[in-house]
Amino acid sequence: MKPIAILILATAALCSAQLTDDSRPASSNVMGAQYPRLHADLRATFRLKAPDAQKVRVDLAGTVFDMKKEADGYWVGTTAPLVPGFHYYSLNVDGVAVNDPGSETFYGYNRESSGIEVPEAGVDFYLPQNVPHGELRERWYYSRLTEAWRRAMVYTPPGYDSVAARYPVLYLQHGAGENERGWGNQGHVAFIMDNLLAVGKSKPMLIVMDRGYASKPGEAAPASGGPRSTTFEEVVMKELIPTIDATYRTLSDRDHRAMAGLSMGGGQALQITMKHLDQFAYIGAFSGVGGMGGAAFDARTAFDGAMADTSAFNQRVRLLWLGIGTAEPERMMNSVKAFKDGLAKAGIKHVYFESPGTAHEWQTWRRDLAQFAPLLFR
Amino acid sequence: MKPIAILILATAALCSAQLTDDSRPASSNVMGAQYPRLHADLRATFRLKAPDAQKVRVDLAGTVFDMKKEADGYWVGTTAPLVPGFHYYSLNVDGVAVNDPGSETFYGYNRESSGIEVPEAGVDFYLPQNVPHGELRERWYYSRLTEAWRRAMVYTPPGYDSVAARYPVLYLQHGAGENERGWGNQGHVAFIMDNLLAVGKSKPMLIVMDRGYASKPGEAAPASGGPRSTTFEEVVMKELIPTIDATYRTLSDRDHRAMAGLSMGGGQALQITMKHLDQFAYIGAFSGVGGMGGAAFDARTAFDGAMADTSAFNQRVRLLWLGIGTAEPERMMNSVKAFKDGLAKAGIKHVYFESPGTAHEWQTWRRDLAQFAPLLFR
Repeated sequence: MKPIAILILATAALCSAQLTDDSRPASSNVMGAQYPRLHADLRATFRLKAPDAQKVRVDLAGTVFDMKKEADGYWVGTTAPLVPGFHYYSLNVDGVAVNDPGSETFYGYNRESSGIEVPEAGVDFYLPQNVPHGELRERWYYSRLTEAWRRAMVYTPPGYDSVAARYPVLYLQHGAGENERGWGNQGHVAFIMDNLLAVGKSKPMLIVMDRGYASKPGEAAPASGGPRSTTFEEVVMKELIPTIDATYRTLSDRDHRAMAGLSMGGGQALQITMKHLDQFAYIGAFSGVGGMGGAAFDARTAFDGAMADTSAFNQRVRLLWLGIGTAEPERMMNSVKAFKDGLAKAGIKHVYFESPGTAHEWQTWRRDLAQFAPLLFR
Repeated sequence: MKPIAILILATAALCSAQLTDDSRPASSNVMGAQYPRLHADLRATFRLKAPDAQKVRVDLAGTVFDMKKEADGYWVGTTAPLVPGFHYYSLNVDGVAVNDPGSETFYGYNRESSGIEVPEAGVDFYLPQNVPHGELRERWYYSRLTEAWRRAMVYTPPGYDSVAARYPVLYLQHGAGENERGWGNQGHVAFIMDNLLAVGKSKPMLIVMDRGYASKPGEAAPASGGPRSTTFEEVVMKELIPTIDATYRTLSDRDHRAMAGLSMGGGQALQITMKHLDQFAYIGAFSGVGGMGGAAFDARTAFDGAMADTSAFNQRVRLLWLGIGTAEPERMMNSVKAFKDGLAKAGIKHVYFESPGTAHEWQTWRRDLAQFAPLLFR
């Protein structure tokens, strides 16, 4: 990966918008929408018609910019240069956070949010290219445990339909407030894998993305910040994996099964795999270790002693992979680093990756996947 | 199909909301959202937190209801009983049409809109059932004509991966302001087909849903109301069909290829198939005939004389299918009926279906598909 210029998301007030020739609609816009627009220097201009509103602002993943009303009833504002990658945002109209009609929607913050894709110069590993393309498939299945229909998204590699081969499977989870579409829509999982496969950097595999929430009838709905119960784990082990193995041409032994996730999903991946090491040989936690990091983290006792026998664990688990973005909040950075340090102290083999300049956002996780996937099933 | 009670979408002001035990969150809500709620009598209650807003309303496909501010800063309102089916809606906050954070989003009106699913008593042909399920797949392909990546959604029937068979293909288009996800998300195309197939009512087929808009570099963007150019037709004939036939196990002769669409897509299906009768044998137009209806419609001269030789056309085209909802606007109803009358007058064989009590909405088109698909490829 090339070095990345770190651009600061300025907290300054919006500059007066003066559209220049170099601006173009964001690639995350709906068809034909002229706003938001991105400038060559990665400033973004937002625009909303709201002649009767008292105050309109842009909220870009927590950083708020005021917008200015123009004579025609449109509110307009331009940000400072943005960090490359995908950012959730909302427009705030008289105190209500609303979607920008110009943006596609992306499920985050427990709702369908607006999002803006800021291009990264010279970087195309997550963009569609002239290579063979796999598919992202909707797989519906009935969960007896939760008495509800569930939808898993399944990436199948190019050629899946024309070759009789069986494939290993990566189970890949989203973060809190997101859902099974996150890795496809925000993460560009299919393009990342297509591009890796085209240059032989990754083994062909299926990637299964389910919703990281599940509750049984009568059970309290899962909190958005994390599962309160083991129901999601039960769904994965007793329903999802059997459904996938029965439906697709998988290699269904532990040596051909991985689980990873981001943020809350990283914690889920660790909890589930450590409890079922007879079922998984590859583990990834992107920007999240499920509250396991911190001063008290002791690898020898964590996860009910799953890592207590260092040498056995190192032999059994083919990959334990951790990632964090260097611009993530200190709390998250510290938690992942403490976890990593605890592994090192106990002699547990692991891979640690820092994504330069990116925050607790999808650009970090896209890079994580592009680093992690090539190490799987080797 | 059972007779359907026609419930009128009242234009009256909202009643004061008094939630009773019988209400439940709409199935179209995002996970955990308690509003909007549907009552047993199909009234819907909407709720939005907007303490600083001056006025909040619900706009249900053009029918506007005022909401009332409560002491806690929430605006609440309950409608009269709604017609069963799927309705786009928006909340209007101080003059700005915004999404309801409680709703999933559905691409319509050229943006990601809120939508509410109103159940129809005793009707489940478009709901997930305990039957084998096919898949809805994302198929990306590069269009040289438009110099852009396009995404087609492809329904594959249950068993596609395990049987070496080849399948006929239905090309199925959305309406104006919608996109390639409409038939999947709003139309429930996969559930409808799964259910038909489970009882042997339909032949297994692939269904390909592409975006009904296309423009070449430098060409004006297509109007939302319909294509200004033949670029979409060119994409279908020169790029989409060859891509599908090269990628999937299709039967690629005209006897195994159909095209249909709704509203604007109905017009596109007629225009494209009539011009390429050597490529299509089955044609469907749901709630739209592309402006071809009306007093001046003469089947003998329409479509550059494609139907001029009645007997040859009747032999060549295995199905020409028209549908309309009885609650559609008079203009649309008249246009489709005039088209049908013109066909009858010229002796052109066709099937005509009226969906009882439904408007220019997805419930009409779901029923259309459930009537149309069983007649294909016989």
